Parts: sequence; structure tokens; C-alpha cells
Amino acid sequence: MDAYEAALLEVWQSDPAHDIAHIRRVWGNAQTIARQEDVAVNWTVLRAATVFHDLVNLPKDAPNRDQASRLSAEAADPILARLALGPSDRANVAHAIIAHSFSARVPPETVEARILRDADRLDALGAVGVARMMAVSGALGRGLYDPEDPFAQHRPLDDQRWAIDHFETKLFRLCDDMVTGAGRQMALERTAYMKTFLDQLRREM
Amino acid sequence: MDAYEAALLEVWQSDPAHDIAHIRRVWGNAQTIARQEDVAVNWTVLRAATVFHDLVNLPKDAPNRDQASRLSAEAADPILARLALGPSDRANVAHAIIAHSFSARVPPETVEARILRDADRLDALGAVGVARMMAVSGALGRGLYDPEDPFAQHRPLDDQRWAIDHFETKLFRLCDDMVTGAGRQMALERTAYMKTFLDQLRREM
Repeated sequence: MDAYEAALLEVWQSDPAHDIAHIRRVWGNAQTIARQEDVAVNWTVLRAATVFHDLVNLPKDAPNRDQASRLSAEAADPILARLALGPSDRANVAHAIIAHSFSARVPPETVEARILRDADRLDALGAVGVARMMAVSGALGRGLYDPEDPFAQHRPLDDQRWAIDHFETKLFRLCDDMVTGAGRQMALERTAYMKTFLDQLRREM
Repeated sequence: MDAYEAALLEVWQSDPAHDIAHIRRVWGNAQTIARQEDVAVNWTVLRAATVFHDLVNLPKDAPNRDQASRLSAEAADPILARLALGPSDRANVAHAIIAHSFSARVPPETVEARILRDADRLDALGAVGVARMMAVSGALGRGLYDPEDPFAQHRPLDDQRWAIDHFETKLFRLCDDMVTGAGRQMALERTAYMKTFLDQLRREM
């Protein structure tokens, strides 16, 4: 654990889908993407933005959830000042944190923002994505699938009620929104894995 | 939906891991096993026992959870009398319901009890088993894995805290406890699938 993680854990309200293990997986993804992109990365900015990107962790069903990334950036700033980051790095961290969230609708304009955004998306995909999605669905009391029409062939998709509808409403589409080449490639592989999971589920039903 | 399912749904408190979709999957498993076992099956008993096996659905952490299958059998009896099952069939249903649960510690002594027990176990395995286990873990606020030692190489397993520890403490062992040939074969296949899921998770971490 470095000073960034220690500073996070002093103040953080984590949840099962956004815990230090999530932060470390996103950091692993960010490093993998950064090494494959042919650009100079400010590693301090990338590290700080990764560790603090979910600092303000609102529930999936909170009405102001689209503000979470902005609130995280604001809350991170004084912590990063204490960790001796200068104003320019802090501004870049804030942009990366704000732009990592879909719902903030802020395009990522720096290499660090693009890498963090893709690295975080990747953690919603693959076996980790399946595990996190099922855990969130269980916590919210959603059913695994509609027993009358599991694959929504004769009804609209409804991921507020049925866990596996979330594959089609969101997870299978994430690979279209990746903003780095390495991130897109990893997203395609993890999406293919999730499809094999859903095929296995279909066989067992 | 037949009269058995209708009678269940009139009174049942389901939860995300024990809902009508679970009942239907267990019934599918029971039919698959029954067709492969070279024995005469009382289909009325098997159907009734399957539909009502989780009639009294206690939370995972309830202190009297080892009584749930006995309570389910008792609660099912008057319903089955209304559905015109005779005393002998009802006694056989009660035995199958009681013996389906590990924690009741009652060995399954009839073909229907053995089939139900294996059919229910199978629903804890494979992709369905992964999905149900993650949903229960999420509902109980457990983390996906210990960030300091995900695969418990230097600590005791603790599935009260970490979801994936449950693979080793329980799920990977279920195939050793199957009591029908067809059930054991299906359990081995689904256990192998779960191991590929865990391998994928490891690669993504």
C-alpha cells in the first residue's frame, strides 16, 4: 500500500463493487493500457486519478449519481495537495476523475483521462464484470432472470428487475465506447468471455 | 404454470436465490437425472417435492436454518392434501423435502429423494451457481475476494467475508456428495466450468 491508497482508505466509504480490490484491478488495467499506447504518460496523474476516481461512492440508485465523479474530484483535491501534487497535476487528475464517468458526459481530453476511463470500464467486463454485476443485483434484490422469458424475446429489456438483462442494456455495449486501442482490444476479449458465460447459463437453464 | 406452482406462489416468500426460476431449473435437472437413472420414478412425488422443497425459505444466516427443510415438509403437507395427494405419496414427498438439505443430516432413502437432492445441488454449480453465489454474497455485503490474498494462500478460507472462498469451502466439494450417477456426472461438468470461471477471474486480476 502506497501513500495514495493509505490516504484513500482513511476517508473512503467502499462497497462490495467499489473496494480497494476494484482500485487495484483498475490500476492493473491502466498500466497494461499505458504500456501499449505509444504516448508519454504522466504516471503521477494516472496513479492519483485511479486511486481516487470513486472517492465519492453513491449507490447505483442514488438520484444524484451523475454528480459522483465531480464530487470525487472535488473531495480528492485537498488530499492530493497534502500529497504534494502541484496545481497543474491536480487539475489533470480532476479532469480524469470527472471524465471517467459516463453519466458526467465529459469527454476525456488527456491521455491519462482516456486510460483511466477505459481501465475502469474493463472492470465491468469479463469474469470480474459478471461477479460484480451479480453482487450488485443481489444487493438490490433483483432476480437473476425473468422466469417467463429469460432472454427478453417477447418483452422489453428491464435491468432494474432482471440481472442478466444488464448484459444487453449495458455490458455488451461498453466495448463500442472504449477510447484507447489497447482498451478496446481487452474489452472485446472480455465481452466474448461474458457471452460464453451467458451461453453456459442458457445450457443450464 | 401447473397447480403445484400456483399453490406454491400463493404462499411463498421467495428470495433472489430461491425463486420460481430456481424451482424450474431444479425440476429440469430432476427430469434429466430421472431419465438417465434405470429406476421407476413416482413422478407425482418427484414433482411435488421439487416444487415445495424450499417452501420455508430462511436466510443464509438464520440460526434455525438447519430446520428449514423440516418446516418446508410440514408446511407443504396440507397443501398437498388439498391437491389430492394420498397419505403414502405425501409421506414420500415429506421425506424427499427433508432429506434434500445437507444441514438436516437425513440420508435420502427413496429414488425421488436422491434425485431431488442431486437436482438441487446442481443448481449451486456451473454458471448458475456462480451467479447465485455472487448474488447472495452481494446481498450479505461480502467482498468478492481478499485484496491482500485473493486465493487464501497464506490465510484460512473465510466465505463469510469473501465470496470466492465459497468455491473451495463448499462448491468444489459438492460433486463428492452426489447420490445418483447422472447427477454426479453433471456435477463434475459444472464444477469444471466453475474452475474455468475462476481461472478467468485470476487472469483479469
